[in-house]
Amino acid sequence: MSKETMDYSLYLVTDRKLLGKRDLVKCIELAIQGGVTLVQLREKSVSTKEFLKLAIGVKEITARYKIPLIINDRLDIALAVDAEGLHIGQDDLPMLKARELLGPNKIIGVSASTMDEALLAEQQGADYLGVGAVFSTSTKTDASEVGLKQLELIKKSVSIPVVAIGGISHMNLQQVIDTGIDGVSVVSAILAQENIIMAAKLLRKLIRN
Amino acid sequence: MSKETMDYSLYLVTDRKLLGKRDLVKCIELAIQGGVTLVQLREKSVSTKEFLKLAIGVKEITARYKIPLIINDRLDIALAVDAEGLHIGQDDLPMLKARELLGPNKIIGVSASTMDEALLAEQQGADYLGVGAVFSTSTKTDASEVGLKQLELIKKSVSIPVVAIGGISHMNLQQVIDTGIDGVSVVSAILAQENIIMAAKLLRKLIRN
Repeated sequence: MSKETMDYSLYLVTDRKLLGKRDLVKCIELAIQGGVTLVQLREKSVSTKEFLKLAIGVKEITARYKIPLIINDRLDIALAVDAEGLHIGQDDLPMLKARELLGPNKIIGVSASTMDEALLAEQQGADYLGVGAVFSTSTKTDASEVGLKQLELIKKSVSIPVVAIGGISHMNLQQVIDTGIDGVSVVSAILAQENIIMAAKLLRKLIRN
Repeated sequence: MSKETMDYSLYLVTDRKLLGKRDLVKCIELAIQGGVTLVQLREKSVSTKEFLKLAIGVKEITARYKIPLIINDRLDIALAVDAEGLHIGQDDLPMLKARELLGPNKIIGVSASTMDEALLAEQQGADYLGVGAVFSTSTKTDASEVGLKQLELIKKSVSIPVVAIGGISHMNLQQVIDTGIDGVSVVSAILAQENIIMAAKLLRKLIRN
């Protein structure tokens, strides 16, 4: 799993609230079997101990399938499970500090919702950008909206991979792909579906076409 | 500030809720001027960015006065500001993982409310124990209570420094000191007081006697 060969095409971001009584690790395994190429574990409002426990479970499954695991926000958890990377938002650690603490080999992704944030993150050494929310989303209500035109403009302005996020489903996927981005991040479009493996397969198929 | 010469006698743990409109860094400076020997920055429910910003501000003042700064729970923040140590509770990172990530030179303290937790933490390489809550406390409502006898028993059973915490004030300080512990941790007894410097001075004086 070197940085150069990373496949950002179908990037799953977790949200346990969508799972009901289903097990997170099992759902991630199904999503991977359906074709997810990257997994980001995002947890808010859990204790460090609980986050670590979840991360250990998820790492076991991502490692088995050789899928990179990215931890959202918490560099301590990323270090503790030796995750492949860290995803930082604008309210998390600054990019430069994250790089200093993680070293050059870990993947660091940065959320950007404006051109300025995107250019700064690239300049500071981010490995990829998560740009959104492309469409309004119920899983992250504090996200600023970024239109498709702006997404396309950002993609054209940076040389690192751009992953689109926010309200993306099989219904609107094509418009997002048409902007030229490198991948799509989904939450509900996979995890809120009854048949996770089929939901992931459909997205993967649409992306490949 | 080597581990061997650490002075645990008057250990301030922060709680911004007690400060009203007063500035955290200024209050910590007053507490240090009053005689606090160690500062632990404890923050819950703030973003990583905000926690880091506070930690940078606090580190500036503790460094100026050559007082060790301990970060509660968040190893990422401890690393980011190069704090002198980390304090972990039973819901935080496991002791062994914290040591692996921080190395042998950083101070790691562990909260213990039972003999088993205390002995395990010592065995795993904790540098000190925070034992409590000795008295019931309003600043940490989820803390299990530990009586003075149990505190004394724990102190006699371990060879690392023991700091008592929980509801300690100038009114009940003597009983705590009589158990033979190495220091007292206080929150409200300093930060909820109008005159922080005098509150710290009084505690320090009572400890020295």
